[in-house]
Amino acid sequence: MKVHGKPYRSIWLAEDGWAVGIIDQTRLPHEFVTRRLQSLEDAVRAIRGMQVRGAPLIGATAAYGMSLGMRAEATDSGLDKAYSALIAARPTAVNLRWAVDGMKTLLAPMQPPARAEAAYRRAAEICDEDVEICSAIGEHGLALIGEAWEKKGKDGRLNVLTHCNAGWLATVDWGTALAPIYKAHDAGIPLHVWVGETRPRNQGAGLTCWELGGHGVPYTLIVDNAAGHLMQHGQVDLCITGTDRTTASGDVANKIGTYLKALAAHDNGVPFYVALPGPTIDWTIGDGVGGIPIEERDAAEVTRVAGRTADGGIAAVRIAPEGCAAANPAFDVTPARLVSGLITERGVCQASAEGLRGLFPERG
Amino acid sequence: MKVHGKPYRSIWLAEDGWAVGIIDQTRLPHEFVTRRLQSLEDAVRAIRGMQVRGAPLIGATAAYGMSLGMRAEATDSGLDKAYSALIAARPTAVNLRWAVDGMKTLLAPMQPPARAEAAYRRAAEICDEDVEICSAIGEHGLALIGEAWEKKGKDGRLNVLTHCNAGWLATVDWGTALAPIYKAHDAGIPLHVWVGETRPRNQGAGLTCWELGGHGVPYTLIVDNAAGHLMQHGQVDLCITGTDRTTASGDVANKIGTYLKALAAHDNGVPFYVALPGPTIDWTIGDGVGGIPIEERDAAEVTRVAGRTADGGIAAVRIAPEGCAAANPAFDVTPARLVSGLITERGVCQASAEGLRGLFPERG
Repeated sequence: MKVHGKPYRSIWLAEDGWAVGIIDQTRLPHEFVTRRLQSLEDAVRAIRGMQVRGAPLIGATAAYGMSLGMRAEATDSGLDKAYSALIAARPTAVNLRWAVDGMKTLLAPMQPPARAEAAYRRAAEICDEDVEICSAIGEHGLALIGEAWEKKGKDGRLNVLTHCNAGWLATVDWGTALAPIYKAHDAGIPLHVWVGETRPRNQGAGLTCWELGGHGVPYTLIVDNAAGHLMQHGQVDLCITGTDRTTASGDVANKIGTYLKALAAHDNGVPFYVALPGPTIDWTIGDGVGGIPIEERDAAEVTRVAGRTADGGIAAVRIAPEGCAAANPAFDVTPARLVSGLITERGVCQASAEGLRGLFPERG
Repeated sequence: MKVHGKPYRSIWLAEDGWAVGIIDQTRLPHEFVTRRLQSLEDAVRAIRGMQVRGAPLIGATAAYGMSLGMRAEATDSGLDKAYSALIAARPTAVNLRWAVDGMKTLLAPMQPPARAEAAYRRAAEICDEDVEICSAIGEHGLALIGEAWEKKGKDGRLNVLTHCNAGWLATVDWGTALAPIYKAHDAGIPLHVWVGETRPRNQGAGLTCWELGGHGVPYTLIVDNAAGHLMQHGQVDLCITGTDRTTASGDVANKIGTYLKALAAHDNGVPFYVALPGPTIDWTIGDGVGGIPIEERDAAEVTRVAGRTADGGIAAVRIAPEGCAAANPAFDVTPARLVSGLITERGVCQASAEGLRGLFPERG
């Protein structure tokens, strides 16, 4: 999507055809800084230091990390080294493992001189496939937004609420929850987005606001607490969020607080949609609340808030008493009964076992 | 309640019998600093600068402000001056107006030499009456907590969730929502309190955590987003919040985000109680969502977060892109249907017109 009017992806091949460009997301929203990855080590550092984040983008960066590794040392030991270094960069990232496993399977049988070129070709494919999936999610979501806009009599503006960042910065382009929003904006539907700040890590305030502003989509930041009040007063026409994991029954695990917004949407008759790529469906789990383990993160994310200081630096301030105990569950589960529909690359379905089986019959 | 083991009220008469002590709440939770108010001007500054906050405490401080004014200049013009200066300090504070109106009515007919002593006496009464109301709320709430503890088979600990700060710092002592919690803790019930940080102003993280810690009540800070997840997993036995205004039908306006917590409590079968002094019931309004105007506050409260820096100072950091638009509704309305009961100084009643009329028959 656009940054200062210029189209970007979140990762790209440099003009020289071998170095890899990324946006340093640790500097957002305060500074737009791009980095040039020139080695396996650069790629590992970018992943570990969270200059790139979001499952699809981590996978794409890892694929290019393998390519950079092969360019430097295409031997079997070089392949093993690149594989191990990337796997260790973010050990729990599913897309990272998927990308480097696939790369290793592809490259290992090849003669070393052929490996680098094949790796670059596959990395580019991984990126293009992700863009294709997100773009398809966007098209299917656009149809929903178009219906909502018709239903509103094309009057005023269409208010969409989102949570966290499921935008192009988390993928290669388009995003998941934000893809329909970008498509609708580009199609001329006068959208306005309510962005929940998404405590504790503030990805809404930092990343989603920055993304939307850069592409020219009107938005307003709110604290997470304000979502229900806006819905009570008819200020939200529909909600779209992303999800980290969807169960076979249509329950969705997503950033902490999603469940509260879904409850408010349900209480006020506001449609609540969840956008996801098919591969994030976990067909092995039925009950999301009981079955999905929830990561407990560092208490310091709750007791401290990072941002830009008056003198232009970036610092953290402590908002709680010294020694304050804090709990920090990173995700919650929204039961399928609160979800109006799931937007996938294959279309929109009911958040239910039947709905999902209809779109993914090969899993039935 | 206790601070570092020593009992305090939020406002007190100094040992010399004329100066007034307060806690500078702008320094909390980072520093415990008391201030000595020695003049009308000191009292005005303390109110305007929010060194004292919370409706009952503002009223009490204004009453002592009138006393300090009378001590310096007990003439009719001195009375007018004190009245006008205090009213202008926080123009929309209902308790402030109530306190200074009452003082003026009391003092105006008196001879000037009698005014100062009468003012101090009345200010002390206002404080004691507030403590009595909050203590009675505490006793009635204690009974509810005791029942919940019995129902849990006195097993483990009783987990209570609260929002914002409706504690002794907002009143003269005990608080409203926190009064039952202090009474239960003092009675030996093993309570643990989940404190929602309460974005955007973080009164939960800053004030409620500090209060509870000072009195020795176990607590854990969470982001507001985490409340639903904890309830889904049986980690909350009951909720108690305060309210700024209750309608004749039992709807409650309280700090933004209260509605979302009430929705989650309802969805998970967790009792949700609201504690309030009778005088905060607005008998003129039926429907809270339609009838209670909601204050829209400065966007900078959303885009910036204040706290303690690494070097010990207090500073604000910006968490959103420069120029980011933000909306900041300060309160929301929780419909009576989501409220399990109202805890007042006269007892506990259903959140309904019938329930309230039963406790306040003189308003029926």
